[in-house]
Amino acid sequence: MPTSPVSTMSNEQSGNPISLKDLTIDNITDNVHAINAQCSDERLRFILERTVAHLHDLARETRLTTAEWMTALQFLTKVGQTCTDVRQEFILLSDVLGLSLLVDSIDHPTPPNATESTVLGPFHTHEAQETPNGGSISQDPNGEPCLVIGTVKDTLGRPIDGVKIDVWETDSGGFYDVQHADRDGPDGRAIFTSDARGGFWFKAIVPVPYPIPNDGPVGELLKKLNRHPWRPSHMHFLLEKPGFETLVTALYRRGDPYEKTDAVFGVKESLIVDITKVSDPAMAEKYGVSPDCALMQYDFVMVGKEEATQLRVDKASEAGVARANLP
Amino acid sequence: MPTSPVSTMSNEQSGNPISLKDLTIDNITDNVHAINAQCSDERLRFILERTVAHLHDLARETRLTTAEWMTALQFLTKVGQTCTDVRQEFILLSDVLGLSLLVDSIDHPTPPNATESTVLGPFHTHEAQETPNGGSISQDPNGEPCLVIGTVKDTLGRPIDGVKIDVWETDSGGFYDVQHADRDGPDGRAIFTSDARGGFWFKAIVPVPYPIPNDGPVGELLKKLNRHPWRPSHMHFLLEKPGFETLVTALYRRGDPYEKTDAVFGVKESLIVDITKVSDPAMAEKYGVSPDCALMQYDFVMVGKEEATQLRVDKASEAGVARANLP
Repeated sequence: MPTSPVSTMSNEQSGNPISLKDLTIDNITDNVHAINAQCSDERLRFILERTVAHLHDLARETRLTTAEWMTALQFLTKVGQTCTDVRQEFILLSDVLGLSLLVDSIDHPTPPNATESTVLGPFHTHEAQETPNGGSISQDPNGEPCLVIGTVKDTLGRPIDGVKIDVWETDSGGFYDVQHADRDGPDGRAIFTSDARGGFWFKAIVPVPYPIPNDGPVGELLKKLNRHPWRPSHMHFLLEKPGFETLVTALYRRGDPYEKTDAVFGVKESLIVDITKVSDPAMAEKYGVSPDCALMQYDFVMVGKEEATQLRVDKASEAGVARANLP
Repeated sequence: MPTSPVSTMSNEQSGNPISLKDLTIDNITDNVHAINAQCSDERLRFILERTVAHLHDLARETRLTTAEWMTALQFLTKVGQTCTDVRQEFILLSDVLGLSLLVDSIDHPTPPNATESTVLGPFHTHEAQETPNGGSISQDPNGEPCLVIGTVKDTLGRPIDGVKIDVWETDSGGFYDVQHADRDGPDGRAIFTSDARGGFWFKAIVPVPYPIPNDGPVGELLKKLNRHPWRPSHMHFLLEKPGFETLVTALYRRGDPYEKTDAVFGVKESLIVDITKVSDPAMAEKYGVSPDCALMQYDFVMVGKEEATQLRVDKASEAGVARANLP
């Protein structure tokens, strides 16, 4: 018989004997809460209590059958086993259920004059190279060249210099570099730095719509739901500077056929941009592109760290969450 | 650009345009419901709607942070990746959260005079050999020999013959056969058949308490929760016969130190048995054991298929679930 550490059981130590016997549909939830209440991490205890409550309510409300429960566990197992170093199927599942956008909205309340955040998605990597302004992020000869010009300011309109601007987009086929098995280094991604006027500019390709990876269990789920896997054309931006709230966002191309049915719910009107043409010969010469090169422009507004933290505290307090995980 | 099947999108086909743009903490849930309502499988649609509602409420109630969300996704990924042909970590997770026992209780309502069901657990296999009554299920020389004698009757007290009785238990070290990497076939499991009087009997070993596998992510979770991983001593039974509701249950040894703190919440008073001694020399001779051999006896009562189905319908109706998955 294995050694039994019964004498060190915390529920006995605490002088609060718990009896987990004869549990039924009606009393099991409270008893699971009771045994989990032994956890000394208050935040974990709170999140787990709410998780168990919702999970149990879900089973009770749907009168979940053993066969359905097993189907769900096998689905989740497959989601986990589809994950690799360069593919995160659980993030994808969270994305298509709207959870990712929701958590982003909760964690990044934005004052009215600041740039809205949106979903990070599963394709950000840490391979992007720091590149001087004016450099190119894409080596795809089939992409339509696009000049990107931006600025970064604070909520009072003052330029912010030294912001790291991490940018990534797909190639013209709708695939990120990490989705190509035979790739020999990063492509479609780079990191720029804003100058003294808060400005940055680079050469890219016009973003295209693409389907999220749909050859795994999340793709199968979408098919069963009669949902398409497409995301509208967009370019990702991650802006970072000490003293400011990190901004994870994306710019969407106006008029994309999937603008209103993004498979991962990421589109916001304030992040939709017109892609125009450079046109002006002087501007074309200044940036070293042809006048008929596509042009995307955007002025980002970052929120100070303190302001963002205060906003998060206020929103949690409004929502009545006393045990939110706040600084 | 990849081919865009936008013209065949079901939401457009249905003449019910959905706009998934500018989604916020407050409106995202209804919009995810709206896009998922395209699913033609009514039961899946219902379960998914409740799943999304609970998942989103959980995030809102806890003001879940991006870091916590990522921790949860990484945990679930690890749970999936810990699963193998002979280990199901997601069932284990469901077990320690009380979900398995809850689903079993929902799916197997039991009339007062029938044997209660309990959790199947992750160690049932399809390798057990059909064995004549009187045979032995254990080859473990270190186990304490135990004679098991049982009967199977219906709810009116009539014996049921021809019931397949699938039995499994750990060895004396607390491990199921599949947990030994070097095993050369099934051990600690066999299938018996009830005779004309509803009787069956076999030789086994006295069950011992054992920890559920705790070297994976579920074990880590239990440690963080300050919970022990032990299950009280028990023997599993799965009884099957056409025309009767399949009975998945287990018998627990009275007085086990973990009787009231089972890590997976499976113990029910009606399933606790005294393990006595054979004592009577005539009985010992009849069953070919020594008089001081341990003895476990139990009379199982199975529910007819029709009665079980009607009970399930009544319980779902009481619970107000119109869309339960019922025959």
